[in-house]
Amino acid sequence: MIYLDNAATTYKKPARVYRVVNKAIRKYAANPGRSSHRLALKATEIIYDAREVVSNFFGLNEPENVIFTQNATYALNIAIKGMINRRCHVIISDLEHNSVLRPINALCDSIGIEYSVFRSGTDNVFKEIESLIRPDTAFVITTLASNVTGKEIPLLALSEIKKRYNIGLIIDASQLAGHKRIDLSRYAFDAFVAPGHKALFGIMGGGFCIFSSSAKAKTIIDGGSGSESVSAHMPEKNPERFEAGTLALPAIASIAEGIRFIEKRGIERVEEEISVLTNRLKEMLCGVRGINIYGGENGVLSFTLDGMSTEGVSAALDKKGICTRAGLHCAPLAHKTYGTLDSGTVRISVSCLNTVNDIEKAYEGLLDIRRRS
Amino acid sequence: MIYLDNAATTYKKPARVYRVVNKAIRKYAANPGRSSHRLALKATEIIYDAREVVSNFFGLNEPENVIFTQNATYALNIAIKGMINRRCHVIISDLEHNSVLRPINALCDSIGIEYSVFRSGTDNVFKEIESLIRPDTAFVITTLASNVTGKEIPLLALSEIKKRYNIGLIIDASQLAGHKRIDLSRYAFDAFVAPGHKALFGIMGGGFCIFSSSAKAKTIIDGGSGSESVSAHMPEKNPERFEAGTLALPAIASIAEGIRFIEKRGIERVEEEISVLTNRLKEMLCGVRGINIYGGENGVLSFTLDGMSTEGVSAALDKKGICTRAGLHCAPLAHKTYGTLDSGTVRISVSCLNTVNDIEKAYEGLLDIRRRS
Repeated sequence: MIYLDNAATTYKKPARVYRVVNKAIRKYAANPGRSSHRLALKATEIIYDAREVVSNFFGLNEPENVIFTQNATYALNIAIKGMINRRCHVIISDLEHNSVLRPINALCDSIGIEYSVFRSGTDNVFKEIESLIRPDTAFVITTLASNVTGKEIPLLALSEIKKRYNIGLIIDASQLAGHKRIDLSRYAFDAFVAPGHKALFGIMGGGFCIFSSSAKAKTIIDGGSGSESVSAHMPEKNPERFEAGTLALPAIASIAEGIRFIEKRGIERVEEEISVLTNRLKEMLCGVRGINIYGGENGVLSFTLDGMSTEGVSAALDKKGICTRAGLHCAPLAHKTYGTLDSGTVRISVSCLNTVNDIEKAYEGLLDIRRRS
Repeated sequence: MIYLDNAATTYKKPARVYRVVNKAIRKYAANPGRSSHRLALKATEIIYDAREVVSNFFGLNEPENVIFTQNATYALNIAIKGMINRRCHVIISDLEHNSVLRPINALCDSIGIEYSVFRSGTDNVFKEIESLIRPDTAFVITTLASNVTGKEIPLLALSEIKKRYNIGLIIDASQLAGHKRIDLSRYAFDAFVAPGHKALFGIMGGGFCIFSSSAKAKTIIDGGSGSESVSAHMPEKNPERFEAGTLALPAIASIAEGIRFIEKRGIERVEEEISVLTNRLKEMLCGVRGINIYGGENGVLSFTLDGMSTEGVSAALDKKGICTRAGLHCAPLAHKTYGTLDSGTVRISVSCLNTVNDIEKAYEGLLDIRRRS
């Protein structure tokens, strides 16, 4: 079994992640931030430690601003719908996943916001976004890397836009977090979102939003916060303000442990490994007859094969024990951008735990499929 | 270590729950409902199975209407804010947790709804609620059992109100689900919410909302649904409509396994065990000097000790290795009802995995604390 669907979720996790989840469900299984007996305090510690690990991994030291959620989608909804409360104009990239596109469209319907789409393919993202700014532009909301092609959008340009025009910035790092160093202390931003279960190697059920210390947002989920219980409203202070109800302790502990694994391995080494695998993949796939390749950066590459449906190719690869994903990958806007909205693409996505052998097997599999077609 | 904080989360889970979580993170760790390779299909199967198990456990056969969330609070927000979209009047109980009270207050602020509070202590809940109905009353939203005292609110009366007056009904079963049989096929309701990690023995990170087949709700969380990806809006059909982003597969698998454990043990047996433990607890605690007992039903009992703070009592019990919870338990309204808003209470809550010996140890601990005070 060769798993090359890591952009959906990393299947193989480091052994230490499995161990910590086991510990979390057996030993730390009291409710964090609620009671004050020893087990609950231990659980609270685990959560606080995870906030620190996440904050530090992204170059910050503000654990209180790390908000844990079920996944990146919830985190994006909390950031987008929490911060955009009035009719305004926002700018998004042409690579957005439905986790950004659908909340934005929901706000178009509910409060009448409008949005423009900037072209990621431009040489100068700063100028491209600048050209779309209107007097009522309030936010730029964008992915840092496409989940279809890996195409990256430079954080520096986004940060400069925010600084120059005093516009809010919400970043979806779902496809980049864990693949390369992102030092948020060097950039201006309002909210930074990532899933725990992709390149950070946590289990499914965890994601987070890192708010900047100046970010203000209303809550979209309200409930018990374990603090200021007498109030009929969520507390003002982070993280309690945005974490209603019981936290997903095992998933949260797994994110911290996944990050520890990456830190021990070295994020620069991980970046290099991802880069080697992606380049090798792209290089080999170029040799397949009738292939059309889209992207091939940051661990993600999409393709179509002339004369075959993407579902057909992915199913044929699956028969050979090679797991890929066919279709739109929940990102119709990106497919519109690449001209693949009708066909979708087959996506191959790696983690640093993949090997060149995995890539070669996928290539050989494709050659064979091509031969028989 | 004697754990009596099961209303916050059950600490000890059945062995089969630990096993299934292990399997979920190692073997079923592909993203359900996304790709169509064999691992993803297996993950999709696990989720579908869990929907069936949950639906059947509550007397229904509508797996598609089981919506999985991070916890009961998210599920309540999705139901309450999704179904109440216009200025109206709602009726809640005087036992509500902040997971109901805060979303309701958020709707008071955002769309100007108004609410009345019915007294749970009345002999006739139907008449009590009936007396509060106004021409614009649109929903009754209530817990089925207090998380402070275990006090139960009869589902039959709620269901009759819904039928007679055609008013919506949202039920928070956080403290009752898993403690006794709830056969939803016998009642009218719109949404029924429970956490996975309490009496259902799942791990933290899972909860659900069961919508009735006629319930209509707008979405409050939007994002990738793995289906109808081309649309800028969430799909119309359940469960995809309400499940944006990656599902918490390990937590969801654990809920199904926890329910299987209960079904094998027999829900009637569990109810009897909970009842025996709660009654024994109440009986013994009555013998403690200067104790004031609140409730003592469905596995939950609260108390205060004259002359001692609730935090002090809980901390003293913790020193003896007995885990309880002090304070307001995120339910200020319930404490207002019982007259304990200033002091809070010490809460003892059992699961069917506790023993009479645990109860006796807590009693002896309290006697000793009383002796020294």
